This record gives sequence, C-alpha cells and structure tokens, in this order.
Amino acid sequence: MHWTLAHRAQKMNPSVIREILKVTERPGIISFAGGLPSPKTFPVEVFAEACAKVLKEDGHSALQYASSEGLVALREQVAAMLPWEVDPGQVLITTGSQQGLDLVGKVLIDPGSRILVETPTYLGALQAFAPMEPEVIGLACDEEGPLLQDLQHQLGVDTDPTDAPTEPARRRLLQLDLEPGRTFPRFMYLLPNFQNPTGRTMTEARRKAISEGCWALGLPIVEDNPYGDLWFDAPPPATLTSRHPNGCIYLGSFSKVLAPGLRLGFLVAPPDLYPKLLQAKQAADLHTPSFNQRVVAEVLKDGFLDRHVPTIRSLYRTQRDAMLTALDRNMRELDVTWNRPDGGMFLWVRLPQGMSAIDVLPHAVEKGVAFVPGAAFYAHAPDPRSLRLSFVTATVDQIHQGVAALAEAVREHRDRT
Amino acid sequence: MHWTLAHRAQKMNPSVIREILKVTERPGIISFAGGLPSPKTFPVEVFAEACAKVLKEDGHSALQYASSEGLVALREQVAAMLPWEVDPGQVLITTGSQQGLDLVGKVLIDPGSRILVETPTYLGALQAFAPMEPEVIGLACDEEGPLLQDLQHQLGVDTDPTDAPTEPARRRLLQLDLEPGRTFPRFMYLLPNFQNPTGRTMTEARRKAISEGCWALGLPIVEDNPYGDLWFDAPPPATLTSRHPNGCIYLGSFSKVLAPGLRLGFLVAPPDLYPKLLQAKQAADLHTPSFNQRVVAEVLKDGFLDRHVPTIRSLYRTQRDAMLTALDRNMRELDVTWNRPDGGMFLWVRLPQGMSAIDVLPHAVEKGVAFVPGAAFYAHAPDPRSLRLSFVTATVDQIHQGVAALAEAVREHRDRT
Repeated sequence: MHWTLAHRAQKMNPSVIREILKVTERPGIISFAGGLPSPKTFPVEVFAEACAKVLKEDGHSALQYASSEGLVALREQVAAMLPWEVDPGQVLITTGSQQGLDLVGKVLIDPGSRILVETPTYLGALQAFAPMEPEVIGLACDEEGPLLQDLQHQLGVDTDPTDAPTEPARRRLLQLDLEPGRTFPRFMYLLPNFQNPTGRTMTEARRKAISEGCWALGLPIVEDNPYGDLWFDAPPPATLTSRHPNGCIYLGSFSKVLAPGLRLGFLVAPPDLYPKLLQAKQAADLHTPSFNQRVVAEVLKDGFLDRHVPTIRSLYRTQRDAMLTALDRNMRELDVTWNRPDGGMFLWVRLPQGMSAIDVLPHAVEKGVAFVPGAAFYAHAPDPRSLRLSFVTATVDQIHQGVAALAEAVREHRDRT
Repeated sequence: MHWTLAHRAQKMNPSVIREILKVTERPGIISFAGGLPSPKTFPVEVFAEACAKVLKEDGHSALQYASSEGLVALREQVAAMLPWEVDPGQVLITTGSQQGLDLVGKVLIDPGSRILVETPTYLGALQAFAPMEPEVIGLACDEEGPLLQDLQHQLGVDTDPTDAPTEPARRRLLQLDLEPGRTFPRFMYLLPNFQNPTGRTMTEARRKAISEGCWALGLPIVEDNPYGDLWFDAPPPATLTSRHPNGCIYLGSFSKVLAPGLRLGFLVAPPDLYPKLLQAKQAADLHTPSFNQRVVAEVLKDGFLDRHVPTIRSLYRTQRDAMLTALDRNMRELDVTWNRPDGGMFLWVRLPQGMSAIDVLPHAVEKGVAFVPGAAFYAHAPDPRSLRLSFVTATVDQIHQGVAALAEAVREHRDRT
C-alpha cells in the first residue's frame, strides 16, 4: 500500500511525558510526573445529581447534535465568570483547552511562521502547534516571566517598545514582514499563572511591560490560563487579556476546577477572529459533547465553583507546603535548588551542576519515585539540570516519602559519577 | 493588532448546512434539512442508569485524564463489534467520527495533495480536509457508486487495473509521483453505505472492483461508515476495509446507533499508520472524554446494541416508506425524480430540468418546509437540480405534510418562472 505521510506528520512525535507516565504507572511508584489533578477534588456526587437531572429534564436535547459555538447557557456562565467584560458571543466551548491550542494553530500558523513561547513552556502547546510547522522561538525568561529585552531582540527593535511612539514602531515592525527570512511573529504564547512546567507566576510589573509592549507593537498574545483559579494566598495579577482584549486569545479550562475527564474548556477571541476559530472547530469535531456541556452548566448554577474551588486551593496548598518542607529537609545539602509556586500544580527543581535529570530518572524509578525531566519543555536548548515535580496527585505522606527517595537517587547518582 | 491568518484559514468557510439549519430552526418549519437522528431513538433511561453506575463504582477514574488511545474496554468492544478481525490495538477512540476525518487529513494531506471523493460526497469531510489544503477530485458516480473507469482516468491508467498484473501497474503509478504536476492521490474517501447525501449504497460488484483496483494500484481507502447498521431489509455488502484491512482506514460512530451528543466515534488503522494518527489525536484534544467512554462501555455491555438498533431500523424504515409514498403521491406529475435508499437517513431528489434547488428553497421555507440544496455536497461542478431530504427527524405526519408543501413550492416555482 502506498501510504504517503504528510510532511507535518514527520513533526509529530510521541509525547515524552505520556511515555514516562506509562513506565511509572506500575504499582508502588510515587509519581510526581503526571499533571493529574487530585481525584479527591472531583465532585463526583454533584456530577451524579447533575447527570440524573439533565437526563430526566432534558435528556433528548442533551444527547442530540448541538451548535459548534457551544451551549448558550454555558457560554453565558463562562462570560460571567471572567473578571473582565466578555460578550458570550466571543466564547467558544472547546473539547478541553488543548483543543483551543489546536484551533489557534490551524487558524494562525503557516509553515515557517514564527511564534514566540516562554522558556520553558507547556509541552502540549508545542505538540498542538507542531503539525502546523511553525518556527518556535523560546524567549529568555527569569523568575518574573519573559524578558522584555529578549522580546525586543527577537523582533529586531532596539528600544523599549513602550517608550517608542506607537505607530512608527508598529510600522517599522510590519515592514519586517517583507524582508525575506524575517517575518513578524504570528503570536506570543504565554501561561502567566502558575506556569506548566515551572509553577512560575508573571509579576504585575512584567505583565504591564509585556502587555503594553505587545499592544504597541501589534503582537497578538495567546494567553493560556488553566491554573489561574488555583492560587494559595492571594489571586494572581490581572490577566493579560483583560488589559487588551482585542489583542489576545484567552484559553480556559474546567479540567483543574471540576474534572479533566469531561474534556471541557473554552476560548475567548476578538470578534474579528472568532468566525475562523469557529469554522476550525466545526471541521475538527462539529461540537463539544452537548451532554457534558449541559451537565457542567447544571453543576455551575448557584455558584458551585465559589464553594468548591477554595477546597482545591486548600488541599493543594497543604501539599505544596509538604513538598517544600520535604525538599528543605532532604535536598538542602545536595546543592539542589527549587522555587516556591504561589499556586497551581507544579514545582521546578534544578539539580547540581553537571547532573542531568534524564540520567537521574532511572535511579529515581528504582527508588520508587518518578518526575518529568525539564528537557521535554524546551523549544530548543534544554536545561538538562531541570525537572518538574507535581505536588497535587500524591498525598502528604507520599510526598515526604517520594522526596526522600528522590534525594537518595540524586545522592547515589552523584556518588556513582 | 497585527492578526495574520494562516493561508489555510482562507479555505475555511461557514458550513452552508449550519447556516440553512439556523434559518429553518424557527418554529412551525418541517425540516428535512438536518442530519439529526430522531431523538426518540436515544436510550435516555439506559444512559441515566449507566451514568449513575459509572459515577458510583468508578467515579474518580471516569473523571480523570485518560489515555489518548481510548478506554481499553471500549476499544475491545469496538473490535469485537466489527465483522472482520480487528485487534483492539488498532482501534483509536475519537471525539465523534468527524474528528477521525480531521486526524486523517492532518496525517495524510499536504497542501496540493490530490484526494479522491465521490460525487457528491459528505460535506463535513470536505470541511475537515480543507484546512490541510488538498486538491479534491470528485469521481464520476452512478447509482452503484464511483465508476472504475473514472478512477482509472484520474490515475492515468488506461486499462482496468484489476486486469493488469499487480506489480507493474503499481510501479507505473508510483512513477506518477515524480512527474511534476501529477501526483498519486493520497487516498480515496468513500461512504459505501447509505451515503450522505444521496442515500446510495455501493453494490457488491462495485465494491469488489473498487477494492481490488485500489489494492492493485496501492491506492489507500478511507472508508466512512456511520450509517452501516441502519439497514432496512438486509445488511449491506461487506465493508471495503474487511477486504484489505492494510489498505484502509475505517471510521465508525456511535452517533447514529446511540446518540450524537456524546461525540463518540472511532477509527481502525493499519498498524504502521496508527502511531501517527495517535500522535495527531494527542495533540488535538489529549483524549476523548473518559466519562463518555465509560458510560458507553457500560451501555454496550450485554449486547445492548443488538436489541436497540433493530428499533431504530424499524422506525426509520417506516419514515422512509412514508416519504416514498408522499413523494409518489405529490411529485409524480411534476417531473421530479428520487431514489429509494435501503437504509440510513437520507433520500436524494432531482428537480425538473432547468430548476435550481437553491432557488426553490426560499419558496419551500415560505410553505413551511426545509431541505438542503445538493450543491453543498459537490467538490466541484454541482448539480443545481439536486437536493437532500432527511426522513428521520420528522414524524410520519410531518413527512406527508412537508412533502406536500414541497411539491406546492416546486409547482409554484415552475409556474412563476
């Protein structure tokens, strides 16, 4: 048979994380590897009631084909939930926020288009964009987020774009489109809150600088915010989209505040762009399961999330604290460093100079603990010392035990090499 | 803001059918336009029981992230359901069979790749493939399916490929790849059973000729079979995939035998091709909702479909008969012609010489009845006289009333012009 693969199919690769997860699914392994929300947080009984109610009251339409935009009631709830003015007409319900990334890629990326991402960034976004064959450029980042100077450098402007007069800077940049081999990026993809994989949160000062810089330069932002509600002490600064809604596509998800197995997310797009994203959605899967949308709309009624999300925050805060304590107890003398996330699910660790997380992983698995090497999350030039730990799936006891085992693996690896 | 659309986004257009459906959703209109299964056939109570059971027994894992391949139990059920030998490892669960088309397009179509389709063909497939920018070639068809002669003509072979020795014919064809401007098609997309839009079924003789011809030539087949179980008097001939499983991707769906609002379908792919389709699936939406998969796996246990599908067949047969009777009663003197589908949901009508279904539609809507003009379903050179009628959504009374109204619209349109 003469099966000929499309060129883009050569860019598709098995997810490193999914491959690691398979290895670590064997019983007895404490996994800090997956990005699985704690099943304790899934409101199973509330779902059961909602399923029963929806099927009883509205079963036939809940099981019928529905509009590609999504259920009107759910789009209204999403718009009302977001802390800036959103017209429900701008909300598109997606089959998980991963699908939002797929649609964005289809509508905005040509083969060879430049797109800007954080260093490191969400692996699933790199995978969703890859089939559209972009040139992915990782921006230099510090603990506050992407560096404005590197953005300027990548765009070929020498001065701070927010200092420059808007129109000339913009015009100068648009000319880049015409220069062969150097095209204006299609968008910058950012995860400002409790980023996957680093757990990092973009500071207010950095948000202001990046948001104003992008607006002045006409550079669109794709803002991915699956973790924003999972803050521990105080809500993060305002979203980038709320600052310039017409310059941003915003992606949200119910996976971390309700349950991922429903595959329910949404995007908010500027009115000019919405119809193309909708057409891409229609072609991709006609619509997101109507039953799931009705059930979630039922669950969300009467402010359920306002009562439910604080319980998730509280659980995850306890688990983050346990992990910080365990790291402090076991890793301090090993020259290992880590950050202190203000929310979300992940913590970012750096091994001592000269050590590679990929090399440590088999030792860790031998000791009964798993993680994801940070290298998976880089568009290019990975930091081999970095690794990602999830603190949400394991219990507090498992966290203490797992971090101790990880420290032992690091110590033995150091001593052996 | 400098939003630049990808080139492929220019090929995306709003679905003509969805636009028509919006117009015809107003109360009082009898719609033969949509492809909506009759909600009477949705086993609402069985679902309610299954949802309750799954959430009670297995709630936390039903709501958790899951594997991209799909639930093992459901993949096994699908493999067992299909009447040829299928390894569950070849089954990929999709978010509706529309997603199967999206994945096939991503993995097999490069910009400019030739793909072959029936004339007319399923609009949703044209939409799913369009973002990958193929050159779509509509094969000439008669009431038995695509014409082998036209396939030969499109491939540049003069003799019947099944008569020619396999290897030389194949080698000659592969050389076409090297000729500039003439490339071997990536696949032929076929809907052999109760086709959407025509309701036509490919005969055994035609299946044999097409299947053997494609196998001899090395031309892959993408076989879409959402309606195959909805036969009225006798099952259709064996699928194309069962004849040469390594030369075919098979797409199936639970939308027509259970309920479309669950968005649950599947594909069966040759082992060599499966990993790329899986990677495309992972990037597209991570996985199909795990909750929906568990619920359907629960529903399918103990042979539910064997009891349920005959009730759908019987209902749809009655409604097809009603439509045939009504057409016979109202349309005979109008020089309108139609076919007699052996299953599925659709019937294909041709208006008298010189009349356009697009022009008749507004008159029909005035009279309280809607349909889809056939022109929407052609890759090129639409037949303006054709139109599609669905006989499954409206009741028998509505069918009689609606066909009478349609005949009146045709008569008035004829007299006015």
